[in-house]
Amino acid sequence: MAQENINAADWIDVTVAIEHGMLHWPGDESIQITQSITIEEGAVANVTYLQLSAHTGTHVDAPLHFIDQGKDITEMLLHRLMGKVKVIEVKNGADISFQEIKDQVGDDDKRLIFKTKNSNSAWYKKDFSPDFVYLATDAAAFLRDKGVLTVGIDYLSIAGMDNGVDVHRILLNAEMCIVEGLNLEQIGAGAYEMICLPLKIKGSDGSPARVLLKKI
Amino acid sequence: MAQENINAADWIDVTVAIEHGMLHWPGDESIQITQSITIEEGAVANVTYLQLSAHTGTHVDAPLHFIDQGKDITEMLLHRLMGKVKVIEVKNGADISFQEIKDQVGDDDKRLIFKTKNSNSAWYKKDFSPDFVYLATDAAAFLRDKGVLTVGIDYLSIAGMDNGVDVHRILLNAEMCIVEGLNLEQIGAGAYEMICLPLKIKGSDGSPARVLLKKI
Repeated sequence: MAQENINAADWIDVTVAIEHGMLHWPGDESIQITQSITIEEGAVANVTYLQLSAHTGTHVDAPLHFIDQGKDITEMLLHRLMGKVKVIEVKNGADISFQEIKDQVGDDDKRLIFKTKNSNSAWYKKDFSPDFVYLATDAAAFLRDKGVLTVGIDYLSIAGMDNGVDVHRILLNAEMCIVEGLNLEQIGAGAYEMICLPLKIKGSDGSPARVLLKKI
Repeated sequence: MAQENINAADWIDVTVAIEHGMLHWPGDESIQITQSITIEEGAVANVTYLQLSAHTGTHVDAPLHFIDQGKDITEMLLHRLMGKVKVIEVKNGADISFQEIKDQVGDDDKRLIFKTKNSNSAWYKKDFSPDFVYLATDAAAFLRDKGVLTVGIDYLSIAGMDNGVDVHRILLNAEMCIVEGLNLEQIGAGAYEMICLPLKIKGSDGSPARVLLKKI
């Protein structure tokens, strides 16, 4: 019999709360959290109705997001989303450059999260801003060549306003998981374990997820 | 430095896949998984739009579901949803009776999942049926009195068509977590660990969740 080893007290919740009317990627549907029926209006129960993009708040992109006929979120192996992860703190306030990260990614670092200056404020409570720190295209190619399984960031997109197609295609063609919209305010650089569980939605190019980190 | 201990290969996914048009509780909104934009139609990306009840597929009920001003899903402590769980196999094809379970719940059994005859077929691929096996009212009161934290079942509701209000109120007044819509086809009776992560949706009386079990 194996040892019991899951204890919620060990884990830090790095998930942004989904709220009615919260910020979203420009052009995506608005986030609506409403009540279908309510006790206040005489029903026996409250039943909440959710209308939201698959890319709301803390979420995972599947290959299908940028690759026609790519894998959907149900086809992503959970191995990419559960296990050891390295959090790298990025100093550059513009992008995550190849120069800055090239010596920080070891051959054993298969899951990476970038904590950037995006985490200096509660970005998820503000309006959308195009000036977030994002992954540079050459850094994306470097991570692909390193065989990284999963990459995470503390804003709604891993890529910037001008390199979104290139960066997503580089990462998703390699079937890397992209975890976006993390709340890293409480997290410093170092080694962690991650549990990142998206919903299991057939045909969806991504899904909101619950993400927990544990220092190791 | 603590030991790394999360490995996806150890875990069995007991989550029902969410699909466009799948069965749902009578009266709830239909489940719609559609595309806001598609590569096929000339967009740079596919973006999926989700419209669904908080009680779709495998999901967690929060107290707010049956208690006005009760706690929403973001206020449920993850401790209830992560840790040791006992799976009890129920023989009775009508309900989960107090008589059948009274000697199977020990003082240390804080999380329970009932595997019933609902798991004899892939219920989640069929139309809604009112004849599912459910928790009897006296059994719900027994679990509350035992101090159980969390209870799970293999159909869309822990309660039957005629005792829904009573059973949900008994469990949710005690702030028990209710995990409904589990796929237990691969699971036998015994001791497991559970990771059950609902989305973090402010003001929601529940949420779809991803649920994993590991034999211990």
